[in-house]
Amino acid sequence: MASQKFSLQESQKIIDFLSNYTPCDVSDALVKYGVKNGGYFPNLVQRSPTETNRKTVVGLAYTVLYAPLDDPRPAVKTNYIDSVSKNSIVTIALDKSLQVPTAPFTKCNNALYGGLMSTRAKYLKANGSVIFGRIRDINEHLNLNYPVFSYGLGSTAPKPVVKVVEIQKNLDILVSNYPDDTVQTINSNDIIIADQNGVVCLPANDEVLLNKVLNYIPKRVEADELVAEDIKNGVAAGVAQKARRGAIKLDDN
Amino acid sequence: MASQKFSLQESQKIIDFLSNYTPCDVSDALVKYGVKNGGYFPNLVQRSPTETNRKTVVGLAYTVLYAPLDDPRPAVKTNYIDSVSKNSIVTIALDKSLQVPTAPFTKCNNALYGGLMSTRAKYLKANGSVIFGRIRDINEHLNLNYPVFSYGLGSTAPKPVVKVVEIQKNLDILVSNYPDDTVQTINSNDIIIADQNGVVCLPANDEVLLNKVLNYIPKRVEADELVAEDIKNGVAAGVAQKARRGAIKLDDN
Amino acid sequence: MASQKFSLQESQKIIDFLSNYTPCDVSDALVKYGVKNGGYFPNLVQRSPTETNRKTVVGLAYTVLYAPLDDPRPAVKTNYIDSVSKNSIVTIALDKSLQVPTAPFTKCNNALYGGLMSTRAKYLKANGSVIFGRIRDINEHLNLNYPVFSYGLGSTAPKPVVKVVEIQKNLDILVSNYPDDTVQTINSNDIIIADQNGVVCLPANDEVLLNKVLNYIPKRVEADELVAEDIKNGVAAGVAQKARRGAIKLDDN
Repeated sequence: MASQKFSLQESQKIIDFLSNYTPCDVSDALVKYGVKNGGYFPNLVQRSPTETNRKTVVGLAYTVLYAPLDDPRPAVKTNYIDSVSKNSIVTIALDKSLQVPTAPFTKCNNALYGGLMSTRAKYLKANGSVIFGRIRDINEHLNLNYPVFSYGLGSTAPKPVVKVVEIQKNLDILVSNYPDDTVQTINSNDIIIADQNGVVCLPANDEVLLNKVLNYIPKRVEADELVAEDIKNGVAAGVAQKARRGAIKLDDN
Repeated sequence: MASQKFSLQESQKIIDFLSNYTPCDVSDALVKYGVKNGGYFPNLVQRSPTETNRKTVVGLAYTVLYAPLDDPRPAVKTNYIDSVSKNSIVTIALDKSLQVPTAPFTKCNNALYGGLMSTRAKYLKANGSVIFGRIRDINEHLNLNYPVFSYGLGSTAPKPVVKVVEIQKNLDILVSNYPDDTVQTINSNDIIIADQNGVVCLPANDEVLLNKVLNYIPKRVEADELVAEDIKNGVAAGVAQKARRGAIKLDDN
Repeated sequence: MASQKFSLQESQKIIDFLSNYTPCDVSDALVKYGVKNGGYFPNLVQRSPTETNRKTVVGLAYTVLYAPLDDPRPAVKTNYIDSVSKNSIVTIALDKSLQVPTAPFTKCNNALYGGLMSTRAKYLKANGSVIFGRIRDINEHLNLNYPVFSYGLGSTAPKPVVKVVEIQKNLDILVSNYPDDTVQTINSNDIIIADQNGVVCLPANDEVLLNKVLNYIPKRVEADELVAEDIKNGVAAGVAQKARRGAIKLDDN
């Protein structure tokens, strides 16, 4: 598992660092090192934004997979939410049989996640939840000031139609794309960075890429702040971007 | 018609009672008695939430069906909005030829409903409007503090492309589902319960189910409040849910 | 180009005039003169609404077309944003190969537009941006108090997957419709009117229609304000609409 890649102390350091930036900043760095989609998992919406909750959410993916009741795999016996650890992002997806590449992105009209799950997740010091499906109990997440992202909304518990079949395994997400639909994967303990713009996954199992990204982000953000300043002083965007981004010095080149 | 099932006084009592709960609470009760989707009609969004308007909306479905101009049925001659009665939820859908199971859920880009309709509905003491299509004039609904739910938004009146062909008949709603798309029906005078999580329909024509649901809701809500308390005190979610929900005493068993 | 139809002074006058109305008002007038969809381009959402920013946005379409990197057309060499002129609405679309009629309406998961582009657009006195695709940097548009409309959100810059191939040419937008999907066109320098209800395009190249629309709008708005007053006094909506709208005197008939 990716968690073996870094210690609890290391992951805390990475989380604290990335909390100062945005998913867009992480995507800019991933693009710089050849990841064309910038790690973006499209179509997720922040469902519980509050005054103090609009900032970046960062944590390690604690992955949970739901499948239809007729799936041959047996249901996991324990309640997944009770095994969440500190700094997790509870990350829940549906089996591919329940995914569609167009909205509402799911064939499951029952909500996968609700207020009691956020209550428990918060108690266990998780940092947020990302649900590739529907969620319910909006007011409860708001009152907990706990960030929840989802494809859609619902009112009904999942039990009558789906069951948890895997915990802490990879999640495959079907995404509309050009020229063909693609599948994007989240590995257990990948780093999730999310805000109002949506959700980015920074793979944790490629240590070289991870270090490059963490190194590049502050330099790029600083350069783009100078671009914004230049533009406000009347410099053409094309000129300012070329000059300021071109001046970034990479340790890894 | 379902309205014959209970008197004006009885329906007022039900509405007053359900106004203290949420669509999620109603769905939990419907699931308890075998309704797997919890009565949820997916993909509707509250378009006029205000400080005082985030609470639950409850009323009896006053159903209106629009069809394309080339539909063989003649247009209804009167304006449907002038026949709305107290405690109604104006519930408008499109003929199946104009429905799609994926977003934007409608082939009609004209808005079915606007500010003048809410002005009249509010005058006639309707409790809200649920539109399986587009609506317009957001600011007017907000200023009226009148709750309106819809699939989407628009700017153009419906007249050039659709006509009202039925009032107070059943509405069939096409819904993406697993393993196949399904049709969910709202009957005239069914009970509609809606809030920020979306819209639930509680069938009014099954008196036995209705009484069970109304009886179960407060017990389940009380149990789940105890679960939340337990979780905040460190009890595992699985343990707390099993204990508190298992202790609910049902009169009807 | 449509810009030849009216001078800078004339366009300023039209923009100032329309800023007092809404996209819905413009659609009512277009319907009156036979445009069945009321000029509405569906499914765009206002992404940076602020207290002072909920009002109508009006300007002339400055059109930009993105295509996939494998498109045979060469990339435009300059940065499109540096050629935006005063009173523009920066209007960006994707080549039809990247459009779908159902949500998320685009096969491009990269954002086409971000904060630096709004910074430059605002410096050049553009009035807003309408992006038929994804945008990023929500907080930056909010902080600039600059209105941006889009189909969806993203975190990643466009460069790895698309290139600008045309500036100030027509944009063709694929729209789900009945009985068949249709293509709606925005011409360079058409008049864009947008608010929380969405985006309307008023064609600038039909001077006769344009004058009829501008003449009709205030009369219709006045009539509908009287309808609302009538309704609040208990008049049936059908009666009030017929009487007040029937009394509108058209100069052009």
